[in-house]
Amino acid sequence: MSDALRLGIAGLGTVGVGVIRIVQKHADMLRARTGRDVVITAVSARSKDKDRGVDLSAYAWENDPVALAARDDVDVYVELMGGENGSAKASIEKAIACGKDVVTANKALLAHHGQALAEAAEAKGNVVRFEAAVAGGIPVIKSLTEGLSANKVERVMGVMNGTCNYILTRMEDAGLSYKEAFDEADGLGYLEADPNLDVGGIDAGHKLALLSSIAYGTQVDFEGVELEGIGAITIEDIRNAADMGYKIKLLGVAQMTGRGLEQRMSPCLVPATSPLGQLVGGTNMVVLEGDSVGQIVLRGAGAGEGPTASAVMADVMDIARGFRCSTFGQPAASLKKTASARAAVPAPYYIRIDLLDKPGAMGKVASALGEAGVSIHRMRQHDHDGSHAPVVIVTHRTTRQALEHAIELFGQTGVVSGDPVALRIEKV
Amino acid sequence: MSDALRLGIAGLGTVGVGVIRIVQKHADMLRARTGRDVVITAVSARSKDKDRGVDLSAYAWENDPVALAARDDVDVYVELMGGENGSAKASIEKAIACGKDVVTANKALLAHHGQALAEAAEAKGNVVRFEAAVAGGIPVIKSLTEGLSANKVERVMGVMNGTCNYILTRMEDAGLSYKEAFDEADGLGYLEADPNLDVGGIDAGHKLALLSSIAYGTQVDFEGVELEGIGAITIEDIRNAADMGYKIKLLGVAQMTGRGLEQRMSPCLVPATSPLGQLVGGTNMVVLEGDSVGQIVLRGAGAGEGPTASAVMADVMDIARGFRCSTFGQPAASLKKTASARAAVPAPYYIRIDLLDKPGAMGKVASALGEAGVSIHRMRQHDHDGSHAPVVIVTHRTTRQALEHAIELFGQTGVVSGDPVALRIEKV
Ligand SMILES: NC(=O)c1ccc[n+]([C@@H]2O[C@H](COP(=O)([O-])OP(=O)(O)OC[C@H]3O[C@@H](n4cnc5c(N)ncnc54)[C@H](OP(=O)(O)O)[C@@H]3O)[C@@H](O)[C@H]2O)c1
Ligand SMILES: NC(=O)c1ccc[n+]([C@@H]2O[C@H](COP(=O)([O-])OP(=O)(O)OC[C@H]3O[C@@H](n4cnc5c(N)ncnc54)[C@H](OP(=O)(O)O)[C@@H]3O)[C@@H](O)[C@H]2O)c1
Repeated sequence: MSDALRLGIAGLGTVGVGVIRIVQKHADMLRARTGRDVVITAVSARSKDKDRGVDLSAYAWENDPVALAARDDVDVYVELMGGENGSAKASIEKAIACGKDVVTANKALLAHHGQALAEAAEAKGNVVRFEAAVAGGIPVIKSLTEGLSANKVERVMGVMNGTCNYILTRMEDAGLSYKEAFDEADGLGYLEADPNLDVGGIDAGHKLALLSSIAYGTQVDFEGVELEGIGAITIEDIRNAADMGYKIKLLGVAQMTGRGLEQRMSPCLVPATSPLGQLVGGTNMVVLEGDSVGQIVLRGAGAGEGPTASAVMADVMDIARGFRCSTFGQPAASLKKTASARAAVPAPYYIRIDLLDKPGAMGKVASALGEAGVSIHRMRQHDHDGSHAPVVIVTHRTTRQALEHAIELFGQTGVVSGDPVALRIEKV
Repeated sequence: MSDALRLGIAGLGTVGVGVIRIVQKHADMLRARTGRDVVITAVSARSKDKDRGVDLSAYAWENDPVALAARDDVDVYVELMGGENGSAKASIEKAIACGKDVVTANKALLAHHGQALAEAAEAKGNVVRFEAAVAGGIPVIKSLTEGLSANKVERVMGVMNGTCNYILTRMEDAGLSYKEAFDEADGLGYLEADPNLDVGGIDAGHKLALLSSIAYGTQVDFEGVELEGIGAITIEDIRNAADMGYKIKLLGVAQMTGRGLEQRMSPCLVPATSPLGQLVGGTNMVVLEGDSVGQIVLRGAGAGEGPTASAVMADVMDIARGFRCSTFGQPAASLKKTASARAAVPAPYYIRIDLLDKPGAMGKVASALGEAGVSIHRMRQHDHDGSHAPVVIVTHRTTRQALEHAIELFGQTGVVSGDPVALRIEKV
């Protein structure tokens, strides 16, 4: 244990440079805490000549991350390039084949290939760690896998895409339209190259799928995540929610039900006074509920150089300290495949519809709900705008299936214009 | 690693019974997650015959926890009796001498003897773990020691005594006096046998001292914690604070300063909209600030059977998984003794004084502040109550020393009645 732990780092962007800064700045502290030196021996990126603001002269350079992963002087392969296939996948596979430990921040890759990679690594007696892949600097993988290891997990929730929360916060605070808030976030460089990864809930869905696997001992099942983005949310929805004491958040929820694992990533109403409701801006929050521990709430920066590098290095430090936990908290080979239960857990819903100004319109909507078996908790008609009138309905607890049936029936009433917005009210 | 991990549990009260329930209920889950059986072989408490609501028939009984700690069929000695000396200390020392790992929830013991116990354990190659000793079910020891292991810690803060937070919340919500809220908490069984452990800040101070050691690589120094309880807080203070957008919390703060380690456990004003300000009731919250990760906030139940047992078992599970980290995050022998810097970090303060209704009284108070070098940010005189008038002053940033000088000078003005209340306004 007194030998140096040697890192090979592939990817010298935001996160990679952050990791290098920590290793360079805190060498003494890392040694004091692990009892050994933590050093970088080799690095890789696309362009060798780019000035990255850190001194790379002491490290060997590899053009090919797969070659980096195979180097004899690398104990831990640190993948910080990103991408769900390509070099990231090939190089991690290579590192595993060479019997090296792997640390990555790549949620897209793990959401799709986590099971196979974990199995391969564990067959070799190696570990794959990914604290930085979920909620950035928040030690959520550690808290769930280790801190709650003696709990049957009952629910996992999270606001895990800072960009979406930023957009929703700006709509609320500054009265911006979705489009305006989106453009502002874009201008600030908050959006991924493919913005749908953010606002479509895909990035957050990747994270949720990873948490579910640990929480429920199941194989990562990203396909099983019901995804719904924030693009349909209007400033009126946010105001209506506020009037009723709620905030709208892009919320991930994972629960094991009698019918299988339910994983949802969708805009939800949460009580304004709850920790989730009070979360503003780009900050992330994860809520873990266990049968013994009750509810644990974790809050912090979900992205950025420092926080993400902090999480990458926490994984490295654990390896340096000799801690070797299974990737998903139990041997990958023992993780179960589970049916995905779509919308098994009932909830009240917020529905906004645009009602045409026709006689008996409200009655027809109410009947459609009744026919679908959805009962109305409250219903409010807002100011007319010419021939349209926005109507907000809050239902009692209902299944998503019944709700979708009602929405289908709305279409046949001839009094509803456009697509209704239906948002779950999550009890938090 | 495939042998069973055998626990010996001393103390079958709230926490001990909680641990037994988890081990009995979740045997399969624990095995799935660690790859080995986690079993209880022997237990100890004072009274053998008490019905504790769990089946103890499969476990050997020891009247003496020291004998339990020495048993050959015990791998991990789990101390859940409490007490800063006596049986708890003797039995842990015995366990260490016998080369066993130790898990405890005993903050009082560790705050006083943690350094010696950690050194003894580490000399034997054993671990002492204490997740449950700080903030109950919240994985705060783990988050700080491991999750933030690559950070230079900049500040640790926490509301870590649920009883105090309950009392302060009830004063605010129900307009109770301190005495009324205290009596209510007492009636609910929330207070320790010696209530000063709670309301005097001692229990929370023990926890802060443990966090400081990990955060700053220093030897636990409970004597170095400046302690101030909540007994002097009035409902007026809570209302004045609320008027200015603050809440009053019994807040622990630890910071390394140029003059040594500053550790304070005292009632502070925190912004009402901050996570700390929004914390109500018996819930705990810990805020960790690191140079890379920024601010991490952890919230959850700080006490109770389930949450505390969850934390005890998290330590057991780590041991079962083969993780052997130093007690305070780096070898105990390498922890530094540090000078304790009393009130080195300046801050604005809230001061409430009772002013006698004499001509020029306000001016005299203002001069006293001026003479001490404390500058006034705002000052407000409240409604007269006969010959007394409460005055609230908010200062600009000042040192505690200057503030204490000012309060001394107040005594010489002849216009101040009773003891002023001075509360730090902590930037959170
Ligand atoms: N940024 C965050 O806040 C954050 C938070 C959590 C997780 N993550 C994850 O962390 C990973 C890295 O993110 P990032 O923000 O640091 O990305 P980034 O700034 O875009 O950097 C990516 C780096 O990878 C290098 N690279 C890309 N393809 C390569 C290839 N085929 N061969 C060698 N090098 C290659 C790039 O080289 P060049 O510089 O030469 O182009 C660049 O240095 C991603 O998986 C991301 O999802 C990021
Ligand atoms: N309760 C919480 O929520 C909580 C939260 C965090 C940390 N903790 C810590 O956890 C520890 C245990 O707390 P607790 O609430 O479970 O205490 P508790 O309910 O008072 O139980 C204490 C247990 O220890 C036994 N005991 C006491 N002295 C003994 C001795 N000399 N020999 C053998 N057994 C002895 C008692 O035996 P009998 O039952 O026969 O009297 C009892 O079973 C304490 O260090 C406490 O600070 C508690």
